[in-house]
Amino acid sequence: VTGETLLPSWRQGVTRDAVVDFLDAVSSVPLPDRLACLDNDGTLWCERPTYVQLDFFVDELRRRAAADPGVGDVPEYAALLAGDRAALGEIGLERVALALTALFEGTGAVEFTRAVQEFLRDARHPTLGRPHRTCVYLPMLELVEALRRRDVTVAIVTGGGTEFVRAVSRQLYGVPPEAVVGTLVDYDYARDDRGRPTLRRTARLAGGANEGPVKVSNIQAQLGRRPVAAAGNSAGDREMLEWAAAGDGPSLALLVDHDDPEREFAYASRAATLEETEPVTDLAARLGWTVVSMARDWATVFAPLA
Amino acid sequence: VTGETLLPSWRQGVTRDAVVDFLDAVSSVPLPDRLACLDNDGTLWCERPTYVQLDFFVDELRRRAAADPGVGDVPEYAALLAGDRAALGEIGLERVALALTALFEGTGAVEFTRAVQEFLRDARHPTLGRPHRTCVYLPMLELVEALRRRDVTVAIVTGGGTEFVRAVSRQLYGVPPEAVVGTLVDYDYARDDRGRPTLRRTARLAGGANEGPVKVSNIQAQLGRRPVAAAGNSAGDREMLEWAAAGDGPSLALLVDHDDPEREFAYASRAATLEETEPVTDLAARLGWTVVSMARDWATVFAPLA
Repeated sequence: VTGETLLPSWRQGVTRDAVVDFLDAVSSVPLPDRLACLDNDGTLWCERPTYVQLDFFVDELRRRAAADPGVGDVPEYAALLAGDRAALGEIGLERVALALTALFEGTGAVEFTRAVQEFLRDARHPTLGRPHRTCVYLPMLELVEALRRRDVTVAIVTGGGTEFVRAVSRQLYGVPPEAVVGTLVDYDYARDDRGRPTLRRTARLAGGANEGPVKVSNIQAQLGRRPVAAAGNSAGDREMLEWAAAGDGPSLALLVDHDDPEREFAYASRAATLEETEPVTDLAARLGWTVVSMARDWATVFAPLA
Repeated sequence: VTGETLLPSWRQGVTRDAVVDFLDAVSSVPLPDRLACLDNDGTLWCERPTYVQLDFFVDELRRRAAADPGVGDVPEYAALLAGDRAALGEIGLERVALALTALFEGTGAVEFTRAVQEFLRDARHPTLGRPHRTCVYLPMLELVEALRRRDVTVAIVTGGGTEFVRAVSRQLYGVPPEAVVGTLVDYDYARDDRGRPTLRRTARLAGGANEGPVKVSNIQAQLGRRPVAAAGNSAGDREMLEWAAAGDGPSLALLVDHDDPEREFAYASRAATLEETEPVTDLAARLGWTVVSMARDWATVFAPLA
C-alpha cells in the first residue's frame, strides 16, 4: 500500500514516508501492545483562537447570566463575559477553569454530555467559517483510520475535560469513552429521596490537569499499557511522546507544527514549561520525532463542507 | 435463538430465561450505551479459599523471604508466611494489603504484568485440583460471549488490583486493559540516568479500594457511561448492581449465589457492610435482581480440563 492510497491528504515527502514506515512496521508489534495516544486540541482539531471547550463554557455562562444577572457578580464570570484579558490574566487560568467547572456542579453525566452535544451541533468557529465539529484535521482522521485498520487501539489523551471530549469522541473520531483520557472532574455518589443511586459532577478535579508527565501516568492508569504511537502539538505532550518513543520496537512520535496562517493558524509552542524558550520543533529534532508541517505536509487541512 | 444454544452450560429455568430476555432486549439499546460491568472474584472466577491475588502475593513473599530472611521480621509478612489468622486479624486487612503492595514498589508495569502471568501459568487451586487460570466459571464465559455478540462492551469492575487483573483479563476473558476497572496502585513518573521517562509502581493506592459506591464513581471515571448490565456476588457489588438496574430501558442485575459446596464453595455474602446481617440474596429479591444459584442454575461450573 502506498502513501497516496493510505493517507490521501498528506503530501509526498519525508514526513509521510516516516508515517507510512511506521504503519508498515506496526504489523510486527504484538496485538495487545498496539496502542496509539493522540492529543486532541491542536492535534486532532483546531484550538485557535480559543479552545472549543472554553467556547462551550462561555456560551453556557452567557445563558446563565441572561437568566440571572447575579452571575456577573462573580469576578471570574465577569471577566469572561466581558472578554477582559487583563482581568483574566490577573485572576489566573486555574481559578478561571475552576469557576467554569463549577457551572456544572450537581449535573449528571448524561445531562452534561447532552449539553456538550447540543452546543457542538451548531456552534461555529469564529473565523474559519465552518462549524467547530468540522474543524477536525482530515489528514489526522486518515491516520486514525489507517491505525485502526492495523488493529491499533486509538485513544485520545487530552488536557481538556474527559467528559467534554467523550461527548463527541465517538462522533468525531470513532473513539469510545473508555479510550478518552483527560482532565477529570470528580463525581459525588449519593442516593436520591427514593433511595436510588445518583452520580453528580462536583467542582473538584479528580487529579491534576492531564498535561505533561501526568499524561504518562494517566495512560498507564486508564489504558494499562505504553503506547507505540503518540501525537501532540505542544509542551503538554512532551513526556507522552518521549514515553511512546522510548519503548522497544517500532514507534511513532508525531508533532504537529502549526505553521499555516493561510489555512489554519501559525503559532510556536515552547518545549517544556512556560519558562523554557526552546521551540518544541527544535526539541522534536533533537529527540528524533517526526514533525508535521501543516503548510508543507498536508494537501488538505479540513474536509470540504458538504 | 434459544437459551440452550446461547448459554449451553445454564440449566433451563427462570434465571436463564431472565438472562435470555435481557440478551434479546439489549438489541433495542443504542450501541454507545451497551456496557456490561462484571465483578471478577466470585463472579467470573473462584475466590475461595483465598483470593488468587493473595496467593500471588504470598508466593512472591515466600520467594523474597527465602532469598532474604530479614523479610520475615516485618510483622505483616511474618503473619502471612506463618498463615497466622489471629495475627492477620489483629493487624487488619488494610495494613496487610498495603504491605503486600509494597512488595512491588519500584517495579515497572511490564515487569509486574510478567510476574503475574508467570505465576498464573502454573499456580494451582489448593483444593479444586486444577490450575487457578481454569477456575473461571464456564457459564459466565458464555454470558460474556453472548453479550459481545450483541455489541455490548464487556468490562471487569473488580475490588482486586487493576494491574493484576489486566495481566490476565485478555487471556481469560478477552477483555483489554482499558476495560478493567479496579483498585489502582499509583505510579511515580521519573527520568532515568539517561534522561528517559520511567514509570514505577508505588506503595500508595491511587484512590480508595474499588468497592461499593467507589465502583460506581470509577465506572463513570474510566468507562464514561452507566452500564445496562452488571454482575456481582457480594456486598461490594451492591451499588454497581443498583446503578445498572436504575437506568431507563432494559437492564440486567445479576447476583451469583455461592450455594454449591459439591462443585465449588458455599458461603453467604452480607448485604451492604460488615455490620449488616441481611444476606445479599434477600437484598437481591427485594430489589428485583436476578439471582444465579450455582447449584441449581449451572449445569457445568468449570470447563473440563483438556
